[in-house]
Amino acid sequence: MMIAHRMSKIDSSGIRKVFDLAQKMQNPVNLSIGQPDFDVPEEIKTEAIKAIQDGSNKYTVTQGIPELRNNLLKRLQSERGVNAESIIITSGVSGALTLAFLVLINPEDEILIPDPAFVSYKHFANFCGGKAVFIDTYPDFKLTAARIQPHITKKTTILVINSPANPTGVMSTTQELKDIADLARRHNLLIISDEIYHDYDYNREFDSIGRYYEKTLILDGFSKSFAMTGWRMGYAAGPANIINEMIKLQQYTFVCAPSPAQYAVAKSLDTDMSKYIATYKKKRDLMYDGLKDRYHVVKPGGAFYLFPQVPWGADEEFVASAIQKNLLIIPGSVFSEHHTHFRISYAASEETIRRGIDILNSLAKQ
Amino acid sequence: MMIAHRMSKIDSSGIRKVFDLAQKMQNPVNLSIGQPDFDVPEEIKTEAIKAIQDGSNKYTVTQGIPELRNNLLKRLQSERGVNAESIIITSGVSGALTLAFLVLINPEDEILIPDPAFVSYKHFANFCGGKAVFIDTYPDFKLTAARIQPHITKKTTILVINSPANPTGVMSTTQELKDIADLARRHNLLIISDEIYHDYDYNREFDSIGRYYEKTLILDGFSKSFAMTGWRMGYAAGPANIINEMIKLQQYTFVCAPSPAQYAVAKSLDTDMSKYIATYKKKRDLMYDGLKDRYHVVKPGGAFYLFPQVPWGADEEFVASAIQKNLLIIPGSVFSEHHTHFRISYAASEETIRRGIDILNSLAKQ
Repeated sequence: MMIAHRMSKIDSSGIRKVFDLAQKMQNPVNLSIGQPDFDVPEEIKTEAIKAIQDGSNKYTVTQGIPELRNNLLKRLQSERGVNAESIIITSGVSGALTLAFLVLINPEDEILIPDPAFVSYKHFANFCGGKAVFIDTYPDFKLTAARIQPHITKKTTILVINSPANPTGVMSTTQELKDIADLARRHNLLIISDEIYHDYDYNREFDSIGRYYEKTLILDGFSKSFAMTGWRMGYAAGPANIINEMIKLQQYTFVCAPSPAQYAVAKSLDTDMSKYIATYKKKRDLMYDGLKDRYHVVKPGGAFYLFPQVPWGADEEFVASAIQKNLLIIPGSVFSEHHTHFRISYAASEETIRRGIDILNSLAKQ
Repeated sequence: MMIAHRMSKIDSSGIRKVFDLAQKMQNPVNLSIGQPDFDVPEEIKTEAIKAIQDGSNKYTVTQGIPELRNNLLKRLQSERGVNAESIIITSGVSGALTLAFLVLINPEDEILIPDPAFVSYKHFANFCGGKAVFIDTYPDFKLTAARIQPHITKKTTILVINSPANPTGVMSTTQELKDIADLARRHNLLIISDEIYHDYDYNREFDSIGRYYEKTLILDGFSKSFAMTGWRMGYAAGPANIINEMIKLQQYTFVCAPSPAQYAVAKSLDTDMSKYIATYKKKRDLMYDGLKDRYHVVKPGGAFYLFPQVPWGADEEFVASAIQKNLLIIPGSVFSEHHTHFRISYAASEETIRRGIDILNSLAKQ
């Protein structure tokens, strides 16, 4: 039966292999999870429950409910110094990325993507007919103007940035962002800035490139901040002509983000998550300190990942050994063109983290 | 700023014009709504609330939770006689349609679509690089093999059917479906059968073409049956190789359907909706009987729409007059290449329906 040619552009074998392994493992020491290990805070659950009880179960307008849109635009201004022209509420950041790439990428467009990076950027850019071009950020995982510049051609249209980053946890400094903004301005690039991990910012150094460059499309959401990955709540904010096209396309695809979640989040933007973030900072320290003597690993400022170098072999080989010891981690090549690192998520209990450290340190000695 | 060429293929001006008018009207007699006027049944709300309280707020596997998938496959067999190979849980039927068209449509493919039909088929097929080819079903809105046949070419790959239909409410008989299945088999077409209105079946005549033709991809969901349009819960069931590709693409786009809604629906498939459907049958009769003396209108067997011919002028002209009398209805050309009809939704209170009938009958005399 016919399958569209564009499907040959996406490859999910890496990530599916990990899923399949995970399902076969009995109660693994799981350091592979890309979402917080706590539940949605009670006060936010209460708002979602109220929305359901009160009948907020119907379609909203495609672009999202006005109280949420307006509030988010104000907060982007007050908290990040970003004057976004418009905003659309989406089904998670992946929903925002889907709409953005479908709306923006023409065949042959070159899309600059850091290496390593979140898996969807590469695959979905290629799926949309674009060409993913990788900016190697090894070994410190810093995305800098100097590293970006050599990859810019006449076909380059979009630069994707992600700080704090998945899979490395590395954050961009304000100076790095300003330099990238200057470079983007000189080449008239659109910057897509995925800021989904912005609350996981352990040294209070998060900054948005949208503050420095008006051709920025910010993607963000509540999946990670409020631990509601299953509620599918995100947004995109930026130039009105792009947002308008995303709204037009959302009408025919996602229709609207889930309604009860929209109403719940609109009432919950003031929720104080600082105690959760403090816990995650401790987990980061525990994990990093536990590994730093035996692994080459960058100490990251944000998100909930570390991206150490494998101590021997190729990444899949090392991960296979870890799995034999009942530890689930992800080969770096799922996120990268390199086969030299692996991703650890410390979104796990302290006990799991400690067990993971023990297994990893015993593996390093082999 | 660059916008991808494919965006020029979709036109939302018709539907947006109606939305904009609706927002400007003060408390209109609204017969334009494409969703039930009742709320989600209490027992289903209770299950969603339990899911939220119990922490079912995280990602599910991309294809959807096994208990829901398995249960739906069994029900397709027992209730519709359909032996679907596989199933994916999606963010509404629109989510299923989005994945299906992106996965299946190659440039130049001809996609057969009834005229009139739900707006997304045309626009999203064109967006995906295909060519929407319309099968005129006026004046009785019956989709028949005889009407389809002349439009089949070597480029035809997909036939979209929708029974009960939006915007006409017309249903296909078993014989019509068998004839269409035979035709599709002769030309090796894939049939996409949108069955979202199947519960709104006033004469117990609903049948699924999936019973008669194995190359059928069924799209269905709970938005209309359970009045949960804002919960974004649908599914696609059919050939495993297609579903597998849809799962692969969902991983990078929608990620998963909203989790609390998945758990709630999994526990609610036995909910008895017959009293709601009986009410809607009464509304259908009220609306049809109120208009039949002054309008050419087909009495439909399902969904919650009527699609009468305008008594004078073009459809937009007539709808503009209705709006001046505070009645909101939708010009037929939003769903059609013709400008001769208009859509009424009777998903409204009896009082609204009666007021709408009065306005429409006074307009017919002009």
